[in-house]
Amino acid sequence: MMRIDVLTLFPRMFDGPLGESIIGKAREKGLLDIRVSNFRDYSDNKHQTVDDYPYGGGAGMLLKVQPIHANLAAIEAEQPIEKKRIILLDPAGKPFNQKMAEEFANEEQLIFICGHYEGYDERIRSLVTDEVSLGDYVLTGGELGAMVMIDATVRLLPDVLGNQTSAQTDSHSTGLLEHPQYTRPAEFAEMKVPEVLTNGNHKLIAEWQLKESLRRTYLRRPDMLEKLPLTPEMEKLLKEIKEEEKKTD
Amino acid sequence: MMRIDVLTLFPRMFDGPLGESIIGKAREKGLLDIRVSNFRDYSDNKHQTVDDYPYGGGAGMLLKVQPIHANLAAIEAEQPIEKKRIILLDPAGKPFNQKMAEEFANEEQLIFICGHYEGYDERIRSLVTDEVSLGDYVLTGGELGAMVMIDATVRLLPDVLGNQTSAQTDSHSTGLLEHPQYTRPAEFAEMKVPEVLTNGNHKLIAEWQLKESLRRTYLRRPDMLEKLPLTPEMEKLLKEIKEEEKKTD
Repeated sequence: MMRIDVLTLFPRMFDGPLGESIIGKAREKGLLDIRVSNFRDYSDNKHQTVDDYPYGGGAGMLLKVQPIHANLAAIEAEQPIEKKRIILLDPAGKPFNQKMAEEFANEEQLIFICGHYEGYDERIRSLVTDEVSLGDYVLTGGELGAMVMIDATVRLLPDVLGNQTSAQTDSHSTGLLEHPQYTRPAEFAEMKVPEVLTNGNHKLIAEWQLKESLRRTYLRRPDMLEKLPLTPEMEKLLKEIKEEEKKTD
Repeated sequence: MMRIDVLTLFPRMFDGPLGESIIGKAREKGLLDIRVSNFRDYSDNKHQTVDDYPYGGGAGMLLKVQPIHANLAAIEAEQPIEKKRIILLDPAGKPFNQKMAEEFANEEQLIFICGHYEGYDERIRSLVTDEVSLGDYVLTGGELGAMVMIDATVRLLPDVLGNQTSAQTDSHSTGLLEHPQYTRPAEFAEMKVPEVLTNGNHKLIAEWQLKESLRRTYLRRPDMLEKLPLTPEMEKLLKEIKEEEKKTD
């Protein structure tokens, strides 16, 4: 069972996301033990202060090192786990990606530290193993980032997904974007399903799917194509696509 | 007031995140009207089906176009808003970034469509203005992505942030990562605050902060530095940093 701890000033933010869907089911099945703690409870100050002004001046407040240090110590004392990562959610961290989710899925414990509005006292960084950013955009806190990383990681754990979908066949794991897909009805608001998909010729369908997968990746994410080793069939289809797209310009 | 609609099969996931912190406060102040609807309620099928098998075979199910079409029509009928975006959360979409958050913040209405586990019938794409992905990682659904985009957007709306922090001075908007920051105590677990920050010389402090901001960006995100126009002072500091980092190798 994987153990996940979240340190936050807004534990209630996690109520919905950690109870529903895949994560909720993984917890019910006993595959996952998630605990959310409020590091304000670990402040040694009688007013339970967690932030203070920055040395040297500047706008905004900083989270103090003491409450986070004490919260981490309490988690460690309660159940020491060797194989773990302590992850600081921070805009200056390494951008999160699928490879990192795969690494996290191999650990026995993940501890996420979420700041909110404020910066971190630099010494908090010395308490963690990873500093991670969700992407190149600014959020009000680390909470949503922690939820995203938990979701991306938990779905990779054995027995979590079941047969509802397979972790292997997704975009970003095959290296190509998914081809267009259609379900019933055959016509909706004058929009029809492509004929090839309804005629039952599996060879033609497979070729169409590969080609449209390549086309979508070529048009939307050429950076993904550059990283991919192409088979001779893919090379041929890609050449056709480039010709076709030139004509539609 | 900005209006935000979310279409999802898991409305309860939004309970915590949309009630707390910045988003909760923006709603209380009347700056934001957020409504979460379950598109299952709009299925015209007596079993309230929202998905079906893909034409041409393949693993997994696809979301049908009808329930989402009907849910969008109901929102439009209730309160037609011209200046809006309809955003499909999809791994094959354009990667979300700060510029997109700024664009979204200029709209009067945002409608997020969240799939879950499953793919979309291609015709759903014809109903939207944007297809957006949170990043190059796989999530079980679009819900967390919608929450992240809502958070990144809402904090940019006028009067939302107050003076707790300023949207302008964050990383990813100045183009440099934040320099290290420290707050009390001056020493914690043998870790000390750098002397320059405690001696009260504002010119030296400002130079140290700019230099360490450059250093962190140089070491962690050289890609961000390449995009930035550098002043002569920044050029000089960067040269010093490169020399210093060579020595510590």
